[in-house]
Amino acid sequence: MRSLVTGCAGYVGSHLVDRLLKEGHDVVGVDNFSTGKKEHIRGALNNPKFKLVRADLLNRAAVARALKGRDFVFHLAANADVRFGADDPRRDLEQNVIATSNVLEAMRARGVRKIAFSSTGSIYGEPETFPTPEDAPFPVQTSFYGASKLAAEGLIQAYVSSYGFQAWIFRFVSILGERYSHGHVLDFYRALRADPKKLRVLGDGKQRKSYLYVHDCLDAVLLATRKADAPVNILNLGTNETCTVNDSIGWICAELGVKPKRIYAGGKRGWVGDSPLIQLDCSKMRRLGWKPKRTIRESVLMTLRGFKR
Amino acid sequence: MRSLVTGCAGYVGSHLVDRLLKEGHDVVGVDNFSTGKKEHIRGALNNPKFKLVRADLLNRAAVARALKGRDFVFHLAANADVRFGADDPRRDLEQNVIATSNVLEAMRARGVRKIAFSSTGSIYGEPETFPTPEDAPFPVQTSFYGASKLAAEGLIQAYVSSYGFQAWIFRFVSILGERYSHGHVLDFYRALRADPKKLRVLGDGKQRKSYLYVHDCLDAVLLATRKADAPVNILNLGTNETCTVNDSIGWICAELGVKPKRIYAGGKRGWVGDSPLIQLDCSKMRRLGWKPKRTIRESVLMTLRGFKR
Repeated sequence: MRSLVTGCAGYVGSHLVDRLLKEGHDVVGVDNFSTGKKEHIRGALNNPKFKLVRADLLNRAAVARALKGRDFVFHLAANADVRFGADDPRRDLEQNVIATSNVLEAMRARGVRKIAFSSTGSIYGEPETFPTPEDAPFPVQTSFYGASKLAAEGLIQAYVSSYGFQAWIFRFVSILGERYSHGHVLDFYRALRADPKKLRVLGDGKQRKSYLYVHDCLDAVLLATRKADAPVNILNLGTNETCTVNDSIGWICAELGVKPKRIYAGGKRGWVGDSPLIQLDCSKMRRLGWKPKRTIRESVLMTLRGFKR
Repeated sequence: MRSLVTGCAGYVGSHLVDRLLKEGHDVVGVDNFSTGKKEHIRGALNNPKFKLVRADLLNRAAVARALKGRDFVFHLAANADVRFGADDPRRDLEQNVIATSNVLEAMRARGVRKIAFSSTGSIYGEPETFPTPEDAPFPVQTSFYGASKLAAEGLIQAYVSSYGFQAWIFRFVSILGERYSHGHVLDFYRALRADPKKLRVLGDGKQRKSYLYVHDCLDAVLLATRKADAPVNILNLGTNETCTVNDSIGWICAELGVKPKRIYAGGKRGWVGDSPLIQLDCSKMRRLGWKPKRTIRESVLMTLRGFKR
């Protein structure tokens, strides 16, 4: 496989690059380093089978150049944080929708037809079915992030029906693990390092979420791209477990040895588009022979230990 | 109501302008005349309550200027033809997604928060549930047109959750009636005028579709924007009837007094993204007190008579 990984210096993308190289594949990685970090690909840069292209996906010519000679695209580059969409709705449109369109158009021009895409469980908005399956009732979007991933999914599907592409679309829960770059574990870690006596919590702390360890996620991505062979393969990725924000705070505080007073902002949602309950039905992925190896608690602790290193 | 109608010189848009003016409202219409026709708004242009803004929705500053003093947006401007998406995927992205984003951003800047949007039944792809309700299983897109309307719907929904907008999203079947500008009735009419002896038909002629008369459609749009009051109101619009392409050919030929030999291209679908069966469940709209007044056959005949005039 001669793959292209977009967002190669990002959190999940850089782990994917490492794994593809470890399996002996030749990898071209693209990143604009807006949030990606060179330190994440330090190992890859020492591998002769890796080539880095520093480019923005809004630059269509650069994307087309990077794709030369590739046969598979892992499209992970994105504005990946659901929380700040309402600060600037154009950001999700440009980085998640128009960037995806550019990748797809470059693929069409180059005759590259296989794409794996990191979508999100946020696409289900506030579902009424739990755990939520891939064919849940047609959702209403509650965030710009979810809306932008929905748009990108639809585009990819149209390329499949129009040009014979094949697609693997993964709807992730939040991913935990080393190189984690945004989200509640980092926020709480930073806050508790600054002041171990108190902790401000968005919402009421009872939001119930599911998380997945990054290598469990990549086990699924790599397995599915080999075993699932429909034209469009849509797969939820998460654990069967859930935890509350309060559970996670308990694990983090125990690990750091602190006992802060918890100050809740109140309300059921931490931010616009926050869903009070996220639990995906991942039985479709499990039927391919996958299951996560880490519990949510273990993933939280491994994320924390990553910061401490 | 001081409304803005985008696509005001288009097929459905121009009828909407006439109806709003007839009800005594003050209307600003925007059109770039890429497919809109000045003759459609000849009546409106004589009405002092109508103001035409000749502008492209990709011009963000022009959209913001047109919105000044408005309190309701009917966003109908679009690349409205599902059939040619694969010729140029950027067209649907620009005209249906980015244009919608520009309208929404201008609304946010101007403090205008109510939007009615012309979406499409094509958004259901090839559904398995008939008639197809608004909360059908999460669909897979089969056309760039459907994908672009899905993206626009998602964006609108995110503006509702993020900025307190209110939205009416109408998923139309194909609309028939006077000023009709594209689709099978026009194609067959032109072909039979050129050669009444034979008629080439895409697919096998057995595709089963639903159509709605333009004034039945606008009755629903105007009623729903007054009576449906959820933050996001998603409503299918169609008739309970279906007809096959062959049924429609029979009505058209009888009306024109011709008996062509029918030459079928074959296959179940006429083009990429063509759905062999379209029938929407419109009971949600009917519960608001609406029902269509015209049958499909009457709508086909009124469309044809519009051409002959």
